[in-house]
Amino acid sequence: MDWGQEAQRRLDKIATCSSPGPGVTRLPYTPEHAAAIEQISDWMCRAGLEPRLDAAATLVGRSASPSNGAAVLIGSHQDSVVEGGRYDGIMGVLIGCLALERLAAEGTVLPFPVEVLAFADEEGVRFPTALIGPRAIAGSFDPEVLEMCDADGLRLRDALEDFGGRPDDIAAEARGKDAARAYLELHIEQGPVLEQSDAAVGIVTGICGIERNSVSFGGETGHAGTVPMEGRRDALVAASEFIVKVHDAARRIDGLRATIGTLALKPDVVNAIARDATLTLEIRALSDAARLEFAAAAQVWGTEIAGTRDVSFAMSKTYEQTAVPCVPDLIQTLEQAAQDAGQNAPLLPSGATHDASAMADLCDISMLFVRCKDGLSHRPEEFASAEDMGAAIDVTCAYLRRLAKG
Amino acid sequence: MDWGQEAQRRLDKIATCSSPGPGVTRLPYTPEHAAAIEQISDWMCRAGLEPRLDAAATLVGRSASPSNGAAVLIGSHQDSVVEGGRYDGIMGVLIGCLALERLAAEGTVLPFPVEVLAFADEEGVRFPTALIGPRAIAGSFDPEVLEMCDADGLRLRDALEDFGGRPDDIAAEARGKDAARAYLELHIEQGPVLEQSDAAVGIVTGICGIERNSVSFGGETGHAGTVPMEGRRDALVAASEFIVKVHDAARRIDGLRATIGTLALKPDVVNAIARDATLTLEIRALSDAARLEFAAAAQVWGTEIAGTRDVSFAMSKTYEQTAVPCVPDLIQTLEQAAQDAGQNAPLLPSGATHDASAMADLCDISMLFVRCKDGLSHRPEEFASAEDMGAAIDVTCAYLRRLAKG
Repeated sequence: MDWGQEAQRRLDKIATCSSPGPGVTRLPYTPEHAAAIEQISDWMCRAGLEPRLDAAATLVGRSASPSNGAAVLIGSHQDSVVEGGRYDGIMGVLIGCLALERLAAEGTVLPFPVEVLAFADEEGVRFPTALIGPRAIAGSFDPEVLEMCDADGLRLRDALEDFGGRPDDIAAEARGKDAARAYLELHIEQGPVLEQSDAAVGIVTGICGIERNSVSFGGETGHAGTVPMEGRRDALVAASEFIVKVHDAARRIDGLRATIGTLALKPDVVNAIARDATLTLEIRALSDAARLEFAAAAQVWGTEIAGTRDVSFAMSKTYEQTAVPCVPDLIQTLEQAAQDAGQNAPLLPSGATHDASAMADLCDISMLFVRCKDGLSHRPEEFASAEDMGAAIDVTCAYLRRLAKG
Repeated sequence: MDWGQEAQRRLDKIATCSSPGPGVTRLPYTPEHAAAIEQISDWMCRAGLEPRLDAAATLVGRSASPSNGAAVLIGSHQDSVVEGGRYDGIMGVLIGCLALERLAAEGTVLPFPVEVLAFADEEGVRFPTALIGPRAIAGSFDPEVLEMCDADGLRLRDALEDFGGRPDDIAAEARGKDAARAYLELHIEQGPVLEQSDAAVGIVTGICGIERNSVSFGGETGHAGTVPMEGRRDALVAASEFIVKVHDAARRIDGLRATIGTLALKPDVVNAIARDATLTLEIRALSDAARLEFAAAAQVWGTEIAGTRDVSFAMSKTYEQTAVPCVPDLIQTLEQAAQDAGQNAPLLPSGATHDASAMADLCDISMLFVRCKDGLSHRPEEFASAEDMGAAIDVTCAYLRRLAKG
């Protein structure tokens, strides 16, 4: 059996569980989600796992024996963004199943319970929240989110209930810390690093902390023809100087990422000076200290630039999540597993958030990234090769064998 | 009679010829325009002029004698922008009338015919065209614009006809060059220069040429978390560097104005690198050569920045109108008239376009600017004081006396 080819075949098949349109659109608690669960249940059964839908609509596949002890968990999410690809999330669920199927086929008996977890909602596309499944298991679920509504005005509580979830039993899904040994998540990289390193897989050092800031410069508008250059208080010019400064400074700090993704002007007309320029500054880093230091520096640069350009400056944090380090022991186990599998697996941080972020509240986490073509994700062109997925299955099997020994 | 106070009173009254809402909204060929024409006709009659609506709906008030010879023309427009002020345009028409009323009251007989022209449409708000009135008189009217439609789908031809204009007779309004001696336009400055110079009035050296360019930088989008800073091709960062460069360079060139008034990003989301940044670059200068040279330099800067930032760059001219110089003889006459009136009248360019731009195709033009509060225009707060308008009337009377002598 070529396990990589088998992964590709199954992902092609489950990609049809999608709303019409380009790529894959599989939102949580929908008929497409239900159709996917049928296929994932089948994967779990073939791997010797018993599937059940938990109260938060996570499909949990657990090995029958041993019947107790701390479980080793492998998981990711079943949902996609709108018009997304066929790998993001679902590939991690599948590789967990295929690795266990392969170990079983080889006659390997694991001395601990194993579970594959297919979380309902990581992307946060349908409801303005995400990670309900891992939060339920980790005991950090906030029942208030059940009152949130989707674009059609349907409450999350009702959507979940209609789907077969049990909103009022979610709190009871929380596992005890002694019931979980480790959580491994496999995911496409969604970036260019592995491709540039010529590596099929990479070991994640941690999940970057993220902060978002709303930054605005306030000047004075005026007619583009009648106000002389001298004395102008152009908010866009100040914002532009800030953007260049932030970007070029971030380039000099290893592992830090700073992005200005949106910028809005007022009045935004061809023949008027901008009186207001508002932008978002997102900063990500594995080191929370480095991130906070950079944000503080940005405050200083903005203030200085505003002074020189005679405009006002305001910067306020609108969102923050701290970094989640992967556990050194597990990183080492993955490094050894990669070696066992003959794979060069570079270390790299995860700039994106994953289910693992929430699972870290329960147990030690680690992640294995799989190379994806051109670093693309969240698009129909998203692609990981059968060979690379085969390598990831090899490493996952080796990882489980290592855990079985250790 | 305090002529400045009288100007303020009449402008307050005609400001009521407006659609409901803040400030003045008086679009061409509307009931508000018709109501304004009634009042302007009265102004003209009180100045000894005979009003008639010409084929292009310009209200032309002409003196009865002398019955031939080259006429001295004074004019501006009756229309406003949406929610504009009570001075822009209409003040120039009124000051022309008041100056002639005052000269007549003083018993001054002018040896040439005089006309006050109240043009229908200079702002170009209702139809995607403007300056029909002066173009008709100057013989540069393009009949194709008659087929343009307003937001309600009404053709300009029909709106004009319903109003009492005669679309098919517009071409016949063209004056012979020997029938016009000079055109003077009085207008609020719409900028801060006179206020900064502590002067009630200013003499315009010319109307700046204008060009608009569409500028775009094209990079590559990507996840703000997963794409390392090194190797990013961020279109916004390149655009920002360009904006700062253009602005700071323009500050060093006397009389040139360069404005980036709009900027649009794609995809414009908080956690994605901008793949496209498109902006407008408007350049204005009294010297067409200086403007063209600056545009060429901007091309070079954009190309250089795009090279450094590894993005693409494109810049194309979307609009251009050449500068219209005011005639030195008339500038000198206005300078002497200002002196006669005891006014310090600095020289300054007009960054905005006026009816005078089109009238320059017929005869020599000159313009007198009136100080406006905080340089504001096109807003309900637009304001010129009775004293400053009184000074403008003084200078206009002195100008006409000078022309009568010369």
